[in-house]
Amino acid sequence: MPSDQPRYAITELNRYATDLFAAAGVPPERAAIVAQLLVEADAMGHDTHGLNLCAQYLDHLQSGEMAARGEFTVIADRGATVVWDGSYLSGVWLTHQAIQLGCQRAKAFGTATISIRRSHHITCLAAFLPLATDRGLMITLASSDPSVAAVAPFGSYEAKFTPNPLAVGIPTATDPILIDISASATTMGLTARMEGRGEKLAGDWLVDNQGRASNDPAVLEADPPGALLALGGLDRGHKGFALAIMIEALTSGMPGYGRANGPTNWGAGVYLQITDPEAFGGLDAFTHQTGWLADQCRGAAVPGGAAPVRMPGDGALARRREATENGIKLYPNILESLAPWTERLGVIPPVCL
Amino acid sequence: MPSDQPRYAITELNRYATDLFAAAGVPPERAAIVAQLLVEADAMGHDTHGLNLCAQYLDHLQSGEMAARGEFTVIADRGATVVWDGSYLSGVWLTHQAIQLGCQRAKAFGTATISIRRSHHITCLAAFLPLATDRGLMITLASSDPSVAAVAPFGSYEAKFTPNPLAVGIPTATDPILIDISASATTMGLTARMEGRGEKLAGDWLVDNQGRASNDPAVLEADPPGALLALGGLDRGHKGFALAIMIEALTSGMPGYGRANGPTNWGAGVYLQITDPEAFGGLDAFTHQTGWLADQCRGAAVPGGAAPVRMPGDGALARRREATENGIKLYPNILESLAPWTERLGVIPPVCL
Repeated sequence: MPSDQPRYAITELNRYATDLFAAAGVPPERAAIVAQLLVEADAMGHDTHGLNLCAQYLDHLQSGEMAARGEFTVIADRGATVVWDGSYLSGVWLTHQAIQLGCQRAKAFGTATISIRRSHHITCLAAFLPLATDRGLMITLASSDPSVAAVAPFGSYEAKFTPNPLAVGIPTATDPILIDISASATTMGLTARMEGRGEKLAGDWLVDNQGRASNDPAVLEADPPGALLALGGLDRGHKGFALAIMIEALTSGMPGYGRANGPTNWGAGVYLQITDPEAFGGLDAFTHQTGWLADQCRGAAVPGGAAPVRMPGDGALARRREATENGIKLYPNILESLAPWTERLGVIPPVCL
Repeated sequence: MPSDQPRYAITELNRYATDLFAAAGVPPERAAIVAQLLVEADAMGHDTHGLNLCAQYLDHLQSGEMAARGEFTVIADRGATVVWDGSYLSGVWLTHQAIQLGCQRAKAFGTATISIRRSHHITCLAAFLPLATDRGLMITLASSDPSVAAVAPFGSYEAKFTPNPLAVGIPTATDPILIDISASATTMGLTARMEGRGEKLAGDWLVDNQGRASNDPAVLEADPPGALLALGGLDRGHKGFALAIMIEALTSGMPGYGRANGPTNWGAGVYLQITDPEAFGGLDAFTHQTGWLADQCRGAAVPGGAAPVRMPGDGALARRREATENGIKLYPNILESLAPWTERLGVIPPVCL
């Protein structure tokens, strides 16, 4: 991005996005939570999954695909395990609420597992992790979208499931380790962005309809279309395929709703688990191990001239610190995509620093 | 393997391995469990992690690195969460016992999570999965060996952790899905076998001390040595690295014992979780989703002439059926490696079919 790109204070972007969602009918306290987590994603540098999604969310609030108001339904609750039907309320808000409950329950039971069916999209998983790690809890969060297929099973070129993100937040005595990966070689967001620009991906992360690896998003528009490759690609993609299946089982099997129901609404099956190290070997013993490992990895030998090893989350936390201090540079087309909504909903545009 | 390779009945191999462990001082009912799970691994075709490990286990029983008798210690027990100190008893036996307890606890609490510190090696993770899936339960099982380092963090060539296997058993209405992957591009067992034969690996799954991908096990003997690559390799290895870290947190952080303690004993940190779909959306709803996904994946389009997609476990279950019917062909050097023990311990060698 050009260095003269305007910067916006996190508080100002929170205010702006809160106003947009509230004006679109979301109760203000929920709007503030959704806004905060989208801006958190931008602050961490996950710029396909922050305010970039705001216009689509507003579209869906208007069409009713995302419910602005209403409540989720508790399908099951055994204390350590909970299932909700999300009624296609904001997945960001639902996930935030589930984490709040999960943290309480994990303190009581040692672990808490919550799965949500029929949630709307839940955006950037990494943004949720500090909600648990800040309290000394480990969190695992996964989602899939049963209305979308983008990734092919190993050996096939026909899309059958989503990239299926898996995020894990791990406390240490200092910065947490924040993992946010998918079971596919690349993401739908990045592929769509490169396709929009007419550019190739940085690696052969797609498969064409002849079963060949490709870096060209055009293979997804062929007849028959290709697909995203599972993590591991043509060589070791049985492993990414296996991870994707695990996440399907957790996010569709556990809540008892998914692809087999043929949903057409943009949405998510959500699985989250929070674990309290105090119920196991103790938080100090836990962070002694995780901190030691992080130090060992950061100090591992690298080839001459190469950058030192970074732990997952190191980059995101550094970007977030920078954003907190100096504001966020938004990805170029984001405010443009929101301009019609800003006008229609009568919201004050964000003022740059 | 040559087609005239002798075949052994599963019951006969169980008898033989039970006799060996019992003669080495393991209580007979424990010896039978260890034997059965090693032979199960061979039956599934995981032939580096079945009876191939028997001679090493007998060595360790003799040296005392594996405790033949004695009890594990309960470090913590909150019902849904349990921690044991395994006292370096057989990891196969400990894991089997933990799964029995975990299945009971999962029925009561919805999920049960058990972590074990200071277990001895736990062999092939896939072999344990049917113990839970046969009861309609989902199981996740992971381990790491804090006394060994073989895999480099992403960006480095210096080994800092183990391949860190992750196995997941998922019930369907028919055959279960049996996942057994590692967070590394290949395994130590396969690499050692290829090195012993003076052969190259089938892919560039190692990294040399210049940071280049390699298929030559000799890079592990260089000065300084290279390492196994994380899943995803030089391209997407940040994802495999992330998975490895997650497994380290679960297997060392949770039980509160691991690399930071500098253990030298061959052993394992073990993490297992059993989840009862009945506590979530119900077993029928669960298997409806998982079975539908399996059918969709098996039927996914493949390039002309290619084999259909296999679900994880399809191959292992087919091999197990074949072994049950026609006996097991053991990997060539296995009985040879056990011959000195057979004689020393006065055990009757296995009789082939």
